[in-house]
Amino acid sequence: MINKKRVVVIGAGFAGLQIVKKLANYDELEVVLIDRTNHHLFQPLLYQVASAVLSPADIAIPSRSLTTDFKNVKVIMSEVTKVNFKSNIVHFQDREIDYDYLVLAMGARTSFFGNDSWEKYTFGLKNLKDALALRRRLLVTFEQAELAGDVVTARRLLNYTIVGGGPTGVEIAGAIAELSYQILRKDFRNIDPGLAKITLIEAGPRILGTFHESLSAFAQAKLEKRGILVLTNSPVKKIDAKGVHLPKGLIESKTVIWAAGVQGTALAESLGLGLDRGKRIFVDKQCRAKGKENVFVVGDAANFSEGLERPLPGVSPVAMQQGRYVADWILNDIKGKTSKDFVYNDKGSMATIGRKDAVAEVGNWRMKGLLGWFAWLFVHLFYQVGFKNKISILITWVWSYVSVRAGARLIQEEIPKDK
Amino acid sequence: MINKKRVVVIGAGFAGLQIVKKLANYDELEVVLIDRTNHHLFQPLLYQVASAVLSPADIAIPSRSLTTDFKNVKVIMSEVTKVNFKSNIVHFQDREIDYDYLVLAMGARTSFFGNDSWEKYTFGLKNLKDALALRRRLLVTFEQAELAGDVVTARRLLNYTIVGGGPTGVEIAGAIAELSYQILRKDFRNIDPGLAKITLIEAGPRILGTFHESLSAFAQAKLEKRGILVLTNSPVKKIDAKGVHLPKGLIESKTVIWAAGVQGTALAESLGLGLDRGKRIFVDKQCRAKGKENVFVVGDAANFSEGLERPLPGVSPVAMQQGRYVADWILNDIKGKTSKDFVYNDKGSMATIGRKDAVAEVGNWRMKGLLGWFAWLFVHLFYQVGFKNKISILITWVWSYVSVRAGARLIQEEIPKDK
Repeated sequence: MINKKRVVVIGAGFAGLQIVKKLANYDELEVVLIDRTNHHLFQPLLYQVASAVLSPADIAIPSRSLTTDFKNVKVIMSEVTKVNFKSNIVHFQDREIDYDYLVLAMGARTSFFGNDSWEKYTFGLKNLKDALALRRRLLVTFEQAELAGDVVTARRLLNYTIVGGGPTGVEIAGAIAELSYQILRKDFRNIDPGLAKITLIEAGPRILGTFHESLSAFAQAKLEKRGILVLTNSPVKKIDAKGVHLPKGLIESKTVIWAAGVQGTALAESLGLGLDRGKRIFVDKQCRAKGKENVFVVGDAANFSEGLERPLPGVSPVAMQQGRYVADWILNDIKGKTSKDFVYNDKGSMATIGRKDAVAEVGNWRMKGLLGWFAWLFVHLFYQVGFKNKISILITWVWSYVSVRAGARLIQEEIPKDK
Repeated sequence: MINKKRVVVIGAGFAGLQIVKKLANYDELEVVLIDRTNHHLFQPLLYQVASAVLSPADIAIPSRSLTTDFKNVKVIMSEVTKVNFKSNIVHFQDREIDYDYLVLAMGARTSFFGNDSWEKYTFGLKNLKDALALRRRLLVTFEQAELAGDVVTARRLLNYTIVGGGPTGVEIAGAIAELSYQILRKDFRNIDPGLAKITLIEAGPRILGTFHESLSAFAQAKLEKRGILVLTNSPVKKIDAKGVHLPKGLIESKTVIWAAGVQGTALAESLGLGLDRGKRIFVDKQCRAKGKENVFVVGDAANFSEGLERPLPGVSPVAMQQGRYVADWILNDIKGKTSKDFVYNDKGSMATIGRKDAVAEVGNWRMKGLLGWFAWLFVHLFYQVGFKNKISILITWVWSYVSVRAGARLIQEEIPKDK
């Protein structure tokens, strides 16, 4: 009998899932996937859960059913609390497991750049809980405004400010505009949801700063045409109950959405590994935590910058490619072979503004408008995990597009704590 | 200009929705629909949200989008606190509205027959919150059992008892059996979900007591074949942290589901109208609260028993027919015409046991097995409100059937309270 090596993967995101898939059914390996939740989450569509288009289950698939046929893969739903790198042991709850290879793929969390007090005035958009809380807030403000019935109150309630002009900020701004100015408009009698004021705030000189300037300009023009106020060069000074304080004054806002930044997780922070300012773990050219032989860090949790001008961005193609790379690295290693360094193959990036408008670029090749939108739709369906989810999302999109309605316009109450 | 009459409808369930639909676009009438939630809930499929098959939004449609085209209908999301029958005023939050006709259609809530202390040990199945709490409990017990990894702990955790052998109890028992014995079985490595023990408890001599005896026997045999222990003649003496105490002893159970009874709502109780033991409001032959000229009670909130051997059952066909009847009554009344008494046209009843098995009866006409199942599927799709929901449910069902998976196997965390 062969001496099985054990690979422990922390996190069932884009990176973790690719590793597990590539290592599936290798009898020499036992793979253990540990995640706090019971599902893989397709984060790029999270904003559509918030904007009441999709249901949580549309973008969340149980890790277990993704690994049903991988006989050498075990899934553990638990939270890792500690790693002992000397004895190669991962601790979770009151249990532990030892590893031959460890892959840290736990992603990132919202960062307020040291202003943690802002959290209580803002809605994040990193997990399902965030998205459902924001969905509820959005829908409830319209209900409250309808109940009040006067324009002054409505204007105060229907005031949404999004901080951060990256893809997430642009996409949620566009989605709220669609909800307010199109979908809800025909359903209210006392107030006009079109009264909503939507403001997108970006600290830098332009939104979608990682895209080509022409696409930034296109996106801004399209957002403005859709009724969104876009403020660039507007670093946030403070957020409080009144709203967002900018150098040029206060943007009053009942609802502030924070899409301005992420940082490494609390676990990453606690491990004693080398971290950048964003609490990402520095890795070498083979995606290993600096100074560790058998510990890999991939995806949003990693700072991969060796030999590069700037670190690789926290986007899903990086995570997926790093995941596959690490899987291959491990397979090579157990055969006694060495691996080449990781090289990122830039697949480009895209962001949608709303129906019929998106921007996309791959190297010097750029798309915008309707064509960009179709590309965006295709890519987001194609990379969606699971046949049923693809179908379900496709149908919801077609139906939403045709009927100008929202598929999951549901104000959910709290689910009570477990008994 | 005509003097508009106002109809206030409390509750957007099966009854309330029928009234609103029938009164839609009559210029002489203003219709106000008040509901605590923002949606109509298709309760007959609630158990499938609990058993991780469907998403909440599959069976919940915003009341506003159901009434988009009804220009004379206003929707208010609020909780009615008081009714002043003398001055014809409904109070909700810090507001009030007067009515010419009032329709009480607020449904029912779980009843513990005076043993309210049992609530904290049991899961109800009357609203989305209930269903999601139960879904989480079901899925979490399997995760915990897998983590523990030993048979003794697994047996303790995977122990589900359903109290109440009516359609809801039978359906959720069947669904848990499918989840444990089929769907989850291939996805766990340390424990076998097939270890689950499922017990259905009925106080009376047979399950599905309102059905023909042959169908009760068929359903019991099918449930037993699916691995469910069915205990009839077993009135519950007590429920506590250990489980369910029956005359013949304790059924130990980590998870107890209460599907044994309903009663009128707290609002119904507070109105000062005549109530039966189940807190349902007594109505006359024209669905009016006894002694009131312009106050109707319909659906589960009503006790309609005048001239009948027993009160009409709390099922959706009664609610829908009463809703339409009251709408017609009001339309007659504004034309100065009187209405005939309400007559219930029994559409029969059905209950599903699991894939390929259901029972159905209409008068003396009975169906069971595969044919009953198809009838059940058809009826539950047909009466589902909204095209998108029909399609979404149909696809989920076909997919679940073919793949033996659950479409919404999602352990959701609490949604944080609003900020």
